[in-house]
Amino acid sequence: PDAAPLRRGLPVPQGISKTAFLVAIEELRSALGPDHVTLNDKEVKNGWYMEHPNTHDMMPLFDSEEFIASAVVYPGSVEDVKLIVKWANKHLIPLFPISIGRNLGYGGSAPRVRGSVTIDLGRRMNRILEINADDFTCLVEPGVTFYALHEEIQKRGLGDKMWIDTPDLGGGSVVGNTLDRGVGYTPYGDHWACHSGLEVVLPSVGDDGDVSVFRTGMGALGVGGENTWQCFPYGFGPYNDGIFSQSNFGIVTKMGMTLMPNPGGFESFMYTFANESDLAPLIEIIRPLRISNILENVAQLRHGLQTLSVKGHPRTNYYNGSGPMPDPIIRQHLRSTATGECAWVYYGMSYGPAHIRGHKLSIIDNEFHRIPGCKRIDPATLPADEYFWSRDRIASGTPDLEELKWVNWMPNGAHAAFSPVSPIKGADAEKLYGLAKRRHGEQGLDLMPAFCVGLREMHLIVEIVYDGTDMGMKKRVEKCLRDMIDDAAALGYGEYRTHLALMDQVAGTYNWNDNALMKFNNTLKDALDPNGILAPGRCGIWPKRYRNRGWEL
Amino acid sequence: PDAAPLRRGLPVPQGISKTAFLVAIEELRSALGPDHVTLNDKEVKNGWYMEHPNTHDMMPLFDSEEFIASAVVYPGSVEDVKLIVKWANKHLIPLFPISIGRNLGYGGSAPRVRGSVTIDLGRRMNRILEINADDFTCLVEPGVTFYALHEEIQKRGLGDKMWIDTPDLGGGSVVGNTLDRGVGYTPYGDHWACHSGLEVVLPSVGDDGDVSVFRTGMGALGVGGENTWQCFPYGFGPYNDGIFSQSNFGIVTKMGMTLMPNPGGFESFMYTFANESDLAPLIEIIRPLRISNILENVAQLRHGLQTLSVKGHPRTNYYNGSGPMPDPIIRQHLRSTATGECAWVYYGMSYGPAHIRGHKLSIIDNEFHRIPGCKRIDPATLPADEYFWSRDRIASGTPDLEELKWVNWMPNGAHAAFSPVSPIKGADAEKLYGLAKRRHGEQGLDLMPAFCVGLREMHLIVEIVYDGTDMGMKKRVEKCLRDMIDDAAALGYGEYRTHLALMDQVAGTYNWNDNALMKFNNTLKDALDPNGILAPGRCGIWPKRYRNRGWEL
Ligand SMILES: Cc1cc2nc3c(=O)[nH]c(=O)nc-3n(C[C@H](O)[C@H](O)[C@H](O)COP(=O)(O)OP(=O)(O)OC[C@H]3O[C@@H](n4cnc5c(N)ncnc54)[C@H](O)[C@@H]3O)c2cc1C
Ligand SMILES: Cc1cc2nc3c(=O)[nH]c(=O)nc-3n(C[C@H](O)[C@H](O)[C@H](O)COP(=O)(O)OP(=O)(O)OC[C@H]3O[C@@H](n4cnc5c(N)ncnc54)[C@H](O)[C@@H]3O)c2cc1C
Repeated sequence: PDAAPLRRGLPVPQGISKTAFLVAIEELRSALGPDHVTLNDKEVKNGWYMEHPNTHDMMPLFDSEEFIASAVVYPGSVEDVKLIVKWANKHLIPLFPISIGRNLGYGGSAPRVRGSVTIDLGRRMNRILEINADDFTCLVEPGVTFYALHEEIQKRGLGDKMWIDTPDLGGGSVVGNTLDRGVGYTPYGDHWACHSGLEVVLPSVGDDGDVSVFRTGMGALGVGGENTWQCFPYGFGPYNDGIFSQSNFGIVTKMGMTLMPNPGGFESFMYTFANESDLAPLIEIIRPLRISNILENVAQLRHGLQTLSVKGHPRTNYYNGSGPMPDPIIRQHLRSTATGECAWVYYGMSYGPAHIRGHKLSIIDNEFHRIPGCKRIDPATLPADEYFWSRDRIASGTPDLEELKWVNWMPNGAHAAFSPVSPIKGADAEKLYGLAKRRHGEQGLDLMPAFCVGLREMHLIVEIVYDGTDMGMKKRVEKCLRDMIDDAAALGYGEYRTHLALMDQVAGTYNWNDNALMKFNNTLKDALDPNGILAPGRCGIWPKRYRNRGWEL
Repeated sequence: PDAAPLRRGLPVPQGISKTAFLVAIEELRSALGPDHVTLNDKEVKNGWYMEHPNTHDMMPLFDSEEFIASAVVYPGSVEDVKLIVKWANKHLIPLFPISIGRNLGYGGSAPRVRGSVTIDLGRRMNRILEINADDFTCLVEPGVTFYALHEEIQKRGLGDKMWIDTPDLGGGSVVGNTLDRGVGYTPYGDHWACHSGLEVVLPSVGDDGDVSVFRTGMGALGVGGENTWQCFPYGFGPYNDGIFSQSNFGIVTKMGMTLMPNPGGFESFMYTFANESDLAPLIEIIRPLRISNILENVAQLRHGLQTLSVKGHPRTNYYNGSGPMPDPIIRQHLRSTATGECAWVYYGMSYGPAHIRGHKLSIIDNEFHRIPGCKRIDPATLPADEYFWSRDRIASGTPDLEELKWVNWMPNGAHAAFSPVSPIKGADAEKLYGLAKRRHGEQGLDLMPAFCVGLREMHLIVEIVYDGTDMGMKKRVEKCLRDMIDDAAALGYGEYRTHLALMDQVAGTYNWNDNALMKFNNTLKDALDPNGILAPGRCGIWPKRYRNRGWEL
C-alpha cells in the first residue's frame, strides 16, 4: 500500500513531551519560515525512487514507523543550519542530516533514532557553486545529484572535456554518497579519495553561544584560499576530512569534488564464465591486472542471477518455487539472454585512444581466456536496451537508472545490502560467496552477489531483494544479514558500509583491543557533540546521553 | 664547529624543577632499562645526514639550544610507548615523537618545546613487519627508512616486481615522511594517499589508568582483520587516519603502505627552457597534461640555479659577490653544464612499455616545444654522474642522496623551506616566483625554486641554503621566510608543510571564519590530550596548558 496513516501517531522524540515538542517546532518554524518545517504527523508514503520520502526508508527493513522522523526541516543556507543546531541543543532534540536521502539498501532517508528531526539539506541547498574547467574540479551543495552535475556540465558545453563519476543510480547526491564513502565505476570511482575540501557545521554550541562552521584543507585560508580548495585536499595541519565520513560529527554544507578529464576514448567489454567454480581462479587473474591498472575501473563481476534480475521482470516470471531459485533454472533462463548460460559476468571498461586500449584489452583477453569456457561477448551483437549499455554509460560517467530494475524481482521490491571487504584473492571470494550461499539457503532467499573490485580490495555486494510489506520475509532477510555479518567477522572480514539497522552489529565487529576504535570514536563524539544531538547511533556511535541505554540493535 | 658543550646546560622542561625532572628520568630508566633513556646534558653535535642528532636540528635556524630535547627515550615496543605516555602524564613532561628525525628543512629532529623528551621510535622499532607480494603492500614500524624498505624488497627478490616511492633523500622514514605528508616522484608520490592503516598510541591516560592503542581502517577488526588492513584504507565508521598527520594527537607505531607494481618500463626525460618568462606559459602547458596523466609523476620544474648548486660545489666557486647571484653569472656557468644555458629545467618520467611511453612522450614533446627555445636533452648524451640520473633513480623508486649536494652551496650548509601550494596556473607561478624573488632580493639570498607539480596543484619549494653558524644570515633567512609566508597569504596561498619555527605563523594564515579550523583542532587536542603532553605546538596546535601563554612564535 503506497500511503498509510501513521499507526503510532506523531513520532515525538524520546525525552520530551509532545506539547513541548510542538512548541519547539513552532519556534523553529517562526525562525525559518513556516514552509521550511513540516511535521510528520499524517502518513507513511513510500513513493518510488524519483519521489522518495524524506521521513523514513522507502524500502523499510523493519516496520516503517521504526526509523522515522518527527519532522523535516529545510535549511536554505549555512546560517539556517547553524540556527537548527542551536535549536536542537536548546531542546535536546536529535537531528538527522540527509543530502538527498536515496541511501537505498543502507536505510534510505531514515534516521537511526525514531522521532529525530531530519534536516533535508538537499531540497533548498542544491547549487553547483563552481565547475572549474581548468582544474577539473567542482564545488557543490548537498542537494546536487549526479544527474544534476552531469547535466550542468553538458549545458556548459564541457561534456566533451570532463566526466563525472556516478554510482549505479544517478539520483543520489554527490555529497551524501561521498560522505557514506560510496563508489562509482570510472577510474574516479573512489569518491572519498576524489573529493577535495569540506565545509562543516559543528553540532555543538560554543561558550559564546555560537555554532562553529569551518572549512577543511585549503578552504581554511583567510583570503581567497578558495583558489586551491578543490585542487589540493590536505591544507596545513591535521587532515580532518575523514572523520566526517560515515560518522555523526558534523553537517557538511559544501564539498569539493574532482572531475575526470575525458580520457580520449573508451570501450566497454563483457566476459562470461561458465562455472561457479571459476570464481577463485578468475579473481586471482583479476588482482594483478587491477593493481597494475590494466583493468582500470571498479569492475563488477556479477552472478548470473543478477544479470537475469536486472532485466526488470518479477521472479515469478521465471520460477514459482520457494527457497533460492535453483541453479539449473537460472541457467536455463540465461540461455535465451545476451550473455547466454553462465555463472559469472564481468563488466569492464578500457580507457584512452584506440591503440592504448588495444594494448590493455589484448592482455585482458589473454588472461581471461586462461579460464576454460570464458567467452567474450561482442558488444556489436548487443541490442541498445541490453543492460551492458547501462554499465557502459555508468563507466563513462553518464548517470543512469537501469540498475533499479532488479528491485522488481519481488512485489513491493525493497532491498538491503551485505557489503564485506576482502583482499582480491580467490580464497577470500570463495569463503565469502560460500557463507552468503549457506545463509541465503537457510533463509530461502535468492542470492545475487556482485564482486566490485577496487584497487587492492574488493567489496562483495550482496543485495537481498524482498517484499517490503512481508514482515515474515523481512525477518528472514534480517536474520540472513546478521548471520552473514557474524560469519564474515569470524573469518576476519568486515563491512565497508551498512544499513542503519545493522550499524551496531557491524561496528561491534571492529572491536580490536577491547573496542579501542569505538572508544576513540566516542571520545571524539563527546568532544564535538556533548549534548548528543547529531544523528545518534549512526555507524554505531552513540553520544553519552544515549550510550548503554538500550538503543543498540 | 661540529660538537660544542651545552652553553645553557641540561634543557629541563618548563614547570618542573631540575631535581624532580632527574628523579622522573630515573623512574623512566628503571622502567625501560638504563640503556634506553639518555639525558641530553653534555653537548650539541650536528653530525651530518647519515649520523644526524636526535636531540635537535642538525640544521638549526635559531640557536641550536632553542629547539632541543632534555632527554631521548628509545621504546622497543608498543608497550614501552604506552609506558612512556603514562610517565609523561604523571610528571606533565612534554614528549616529542620522531621516527627517524631527518625532517630537514622543516626542523630536523628537534622538538618544538625546549626540553621535551624526544621519543626516538625508529632506533629500536624498525622492523618491516610484512611485504605482501600479492597485494603490493607493506606494514612497517617507524624506524624503517626508504633505503631499508628498498633493500629488503631487493633482498627478497621482489625488486623486479614492485617499487617503493621515495622522496629526494632516501634516509628518512616511511612513517615520519608520510605523517608529515611528504612527497615522492613516482605515480605513488602522494605518500599520504598511498598509505593504508595506522596503529596509534593515544596521549592520554584513561579512567582505568590505561593508555589506549587503536588501529584505523580494517585493522580494527577483531579476528584476523589484518588481511585487509593494507588493502583497504577506510574500514567502517569515521576514517580517522587524517587527524594523525601533521598533528600532535597520537603516536604512530605501525603504518601500512602500498607499493607500486613495476610498470613494465620507464624512461626519464629532461627539457630546458631558455627564459625566466617561459614559466607562465609552460605551467599552462603542464596543467592539462598532468591532470590527464600524460605527465605521470610529480615532476620537478627547477630553476637553473638549483641545477648548478646540486653539482655540490660551494657558491664561492662561481661567485664571490654579496646579494643574490646575478642571472648572467648563473647563465654563464650553466653554459658549460649538461643542460646548457637556461632558466628552467623540467625533469620527468614516462612509465610503461615502449610503445605506451612513446604515445605520451610524443604528446609531451609537441606541447613543450610550443615554448620557443625549448630543448630536449638527450639522456644518451649525459654522463653517469649527471644529476639527471639521480632523478631517474628516484622517479623509478630507487632511494638516493645526490640531492643533499646543494646544501654544500654554503659553508656549514643548512636550509629551510618555503612551500606554498597553488593551482597549476601560469599566473600563480608568476606571483609566487615574483614574491620569492623580491623577498630574496631584499635579504640578499640566492633563490633556488622548484615547482613540484602534483595532480591538480603544485608546491613551490624554495629551499634557502644558509650557513648554520652565521647568526646574521639566519636572521635574514627567517625574515625572508616570514615575509614570503605573509605575502603569499595576502594573495591567497598557504603552505603545505613548514619548519617548526614557522608553524604558528603558517597555521595563523589558515584563519577563515575567525580561526574556526584552529578552534576545531584545539577541541580535538583537548579531548585527546587533556594534559597537553604530546608535541605541544606542532603545526601550531597548543594544548590548553600552553595556549595563549606566549609560546607562539
Ligand atoms: C539499485 C541500487 C544500486 C546502487 N548502487 C550503488 C553504487 O553503485 N554505489 C554506491 O555507492 N551506492 C549505491 N547504491 C546505494 C545508494 O543509492 C547510493 O549510495 C546513494 O547515492 C546514496 O544516497 P544519497 O546520495 O541520496 O545520500 P544521502 O541519503 O543523502 O546520504 C547518505 C548518508 O550520509 C549522511 N549524510 C548525507 N548528507 C550529509 C551531510 N550533508 N552532512 C552530514 N551527513 C550527511 C547521512 O547519514 C545519510 O544517511 C545503490 C542503491 C540501489 C537501490
Ligand atoms: C635535500 C633535501 C631534499 C628533500 N626532499 C624531500 C622530498 O622530496 N620530499 C619530502 O617529502 N621531503 C623532502 N625533504 C624533507 C625531509 O628530509 C623528508 O621529508 C624526510 O623524509 C623527513 O624526515 P623523517 O622521514 O626522518 O621524518 P621524522 O623526522 O621522523 O618525522 C617528521 C615529523 O613527523 C612527526 N612524526 C614522526 N614520526 C611520528 C610518529 N611515529 N608518530 C607521531 N608523529 C611522528 C614528528 O613531528 C616529526 O618531526 C628533503 C630534505 C632535504 C634536506
